[in-house]
Amino acid sequence: MTIRTDREHALDLDRVDELARFRDEFVIDDPDLIYLDGNSLGRLPKRSVERMREVVEREWGSRLIRGWNEGWFTLPQRVGVKIAQLIGAQADEVIAADSTSVNFFKSVVAALRARPTRSKIVTDDLNFPSDVYILQGAIDLLGQRHRLQLVHAEDELREAIDDDTALVTLTHTAFKSGYVYDMAAITAAAQRAGALMLWDLSHSIGALPLALNACNVDLAVGCTYKYLNGGPGAPAFLFVRKDLQDELLNPIWGWFGQQGQFDFQLQYQPARGITRWQAGTPNMLALSAVEPAIDLLLEAGIDRLRAKSIAQSEYLIGLWEELLQPLGVTLNSPRDHRQRGSHVSIGHVEALRIDRALIEDLKVVPDFRYPDNIRLGIAPIYTSFAEIHEGVSRIRRAIVERLYEKYPSERPVVT
Amino acid sequence: MTIRTDREHALDLDRVDELARFRDEFVIDDPDLIYLDGNSLGRLPKRSVERMREVVEREWGSRLIRGWNEGWFTLPQRVGVKIAQLIGAQADEVIAADSTSVNFFKSVVAALRARPTRSKIVTDDLNFPSDVYILQGAIDLLGQRHRLQLVHAEDELREAIDDDTALVTLTHTAFKSGYVYDMAAITAAAQRAGALMLWDLSHSIGALPLALNACNVDLAVGCTYKYLNGGPGAPAFLFVRKDLQDELLNPIWGWFGQQGQFDFQLQYQPARGITRWQAGTPNMLALSAVEPAIDLLLEAGIDRLRAKSIAQSEYLIGLWEELLQPLGVTLNSPRDHRQRGSHVSIGHVEALRIDRALIEDLKVVPDFRYPDNIRLGIAPIYTSFAEIHEGVSRIRRAIVERLYEKYPSERPVVT
Repeated sequence: MTIRTDREHALDLDRVDELARFRDEFVIDDPDLIYLDGNSLGRLPKRSVERMREVVEREWGSRLIRGWNEGWFTLPQRVGVKIAQLIGAQADEVIAADSTSVNFFKSVVAALRARPTRSKIVTDDLNFPSDVYILQGAIDLLGQRHRLQLVHAEDELREAIDDDTALVTLTHTAFKSGYVYDMAAITAAAQRAGALMLWDLSHSIGALPLALNACNVDLAVGCTYKYLNGGPGAPAFLFVRKDLQDELLNPIWGWFGQQGQFDFQLQYQPARGITRWQAGTPNMLALSAVEPAIDLLLEAGIDRLRAKSIAQSEYLIGLWEELLQPLGVTLNSPRDHRQRGSHVSIGHVEALRIDRALIEDLKVVPDFRYPDNIRLGIAPIYTSFAEIHEGVSRIRRAIVERLYEKYPSERPVVT
Repeated sequence: MTIRTDREHALDLDRVDELARFRDEFVIDDPDLIYLDGNSLGRLPKRSVERMREVVEREWGSRLIRGWNEGWFTLPQRVGVKIAQLIGAQADEVIAADSTSVNFFKSVVAALRARPTRSKIVTDDLNFPSDVYILQGAIDLLGQRHRLQLVHAEDELREAIDDDTALVTLTHTAFKSGYVYDMAAITAAAQRAGALMLWDLSHSIGALPLALNACNVDLAVGCTYKYLNGGPGAPAFLFVRKDLQDELLNPIWGWFGQQGQFDFQLQYQPARGITRWQAGTPNMLALSAVEPAIDLLLEAGIDRLRAKSIAQSEYLIGLWEELLQPLGVTLNSPRDHRQRGSHVSIGHVEALRIDRALIEDLKVVPDFRYPDNIRLGIAPIYTSFAEIHEGVSRIRRAIVERLYEKYPSERPVVT
């Protein structure tokens, strides 16, 4: 495939983009900044600015404690209803709560206890490390009765799933390469073997259509600060399939999961449905930022967002082929868009220093993953073709002009 | 004791109050609203309004992902340092993270696993129900090897602590009555028996001086949305005594507790110190609201705040004696201020309906706890003597004029 590498072509693509107007829904105060890290932290929706002023200044400031009865109590469920629409789940199968790691912990412990005679957990080495740590901690907590099999390819994965497997868990879109698993096929394989299937959707939600019910998924978690644009460290979500909600047991028995929490009974009696998967008091400021951000994605439509994401990642890869590959830059993401999420990873022996030059000299913000991986995130709701064109041009400049050479090869302590 | 019940006296007390100026630091847009529920949700500091605009609009909106390296990563520790000053702990013994229930879960599981040969947990029936639920859940999770002894008086508590006790845990200031435990004596009793001591400080922090190090406390948790004025559902905190931080084990092995989290190693290796007690990604919007609120308390000084709180609760009880007791209102809090936190509970057979009349007809916002308990919270940093005087006057009016009679005796489903 050859591609037009001129800027005019990018502007043409933007002119015919039916989602282009959504870019104006975001705060973009420096048009010269090329932001390709929406897969780490999404941009700020203008509506969230308004919403945050309202929840802080009017709801907290003026309504005070009364805010709880004026919409706060049900906000975790209300946000859950909207997330459900993005992932092909029923309205009462999702709750917004806690962090992804805490929700993953709840899910893993619940799943392992629901398969008491089985001892194996299967995951892969593409998984996000925090998920692997949580699995290791759960094994330790439950008395070292389980072992974790960490496979490193999809055929190994299928082989590893057997009748001793309690749980299969994967990150649906791999955080490094953007590789996307076949949710239907792997869920079916896990369930055929009698295991439960738990997906981490952090790098998928908001970037591509998901069909949890159609795939009969048991459990899923994900974050809202990437493609959902919910803000730094925004609350996570937890999906539990309807028929499992009262069967599996959330191990953290907090009062927001209690039936009639204001009865203040001293014996835990879990609430019915997805509500029992909450633990402590949810944060209203954080959750309030999430809601208008999800509304934007629902308005744009996840199928149209996916179509644009594919067009943009294909465009980016086309530019890479013409402009970057000749300079020794590798493509670290799948070439086939059906196997690729919404970020494109590229590699270079000097990737760490190039990344630094991009940030410090050229006003490009990508994202770096050790040891040599530059992730270029496409958030189709606000990323423009012109931005991608300019980003690739500046990456080329960083290499051609050797702008990276003045930076050290060692990583700073905090990256 | 007799007390002057005229409004002029309240205004005189406000005039000589050395902390009176701090009231101006809070958003009070309706001076006719009598807010006596700072023990449930503290008022909004004006500085937090500014800080929230800054973190949303400048840090998230403009700095985007770069915000993590410009102060976000260390915010949980930075807030922890400030909380430590309020509770008599070392700077590196406190982390702001998760919800109180999740932190309580971490602490309980860690404590029980650190005393593997012991089978008893001792708490009391004054404890906040969420803590009791978490204990019940931990027992279930760890294989029903422990039993929970729920005592209902302080002498029973001392008797219950024995050489089979793994953990003693109490809410320092009881959520219903405001009764305050002797932290030094009970911690010593628990430790003499070889048990670990875990305090829930939710109703104490910001209201009275705490001396965790002086009392040699092992573990403590608390919320920041009551007297710390951190906002609805604000992040909680966790204290782990220095020498126990690396000895006890946080059961939720998330990436924010990992040593060198951006190395993305696939084997969990806990960070050193209090950092390992984090789990997933902390929310920056929520945490940002907490910091300026704590600064205000530090400026006012916890000893001066306590002195004012005692003066105000004594004043309130004096007014109760003169104006409410004759109408059948009981005092449900300790009469001795040394045993009392910063809220005063009163009771009445019609308390539920009186509470409703106060809120709906008389612009008083107290807080109700089933079955007949009206809590009047004093937040000395912004509560004025005039507000207390006016609040008691309106409670008297609700009873004398029988304003409550038009309301049903049943509770609404959500209160």
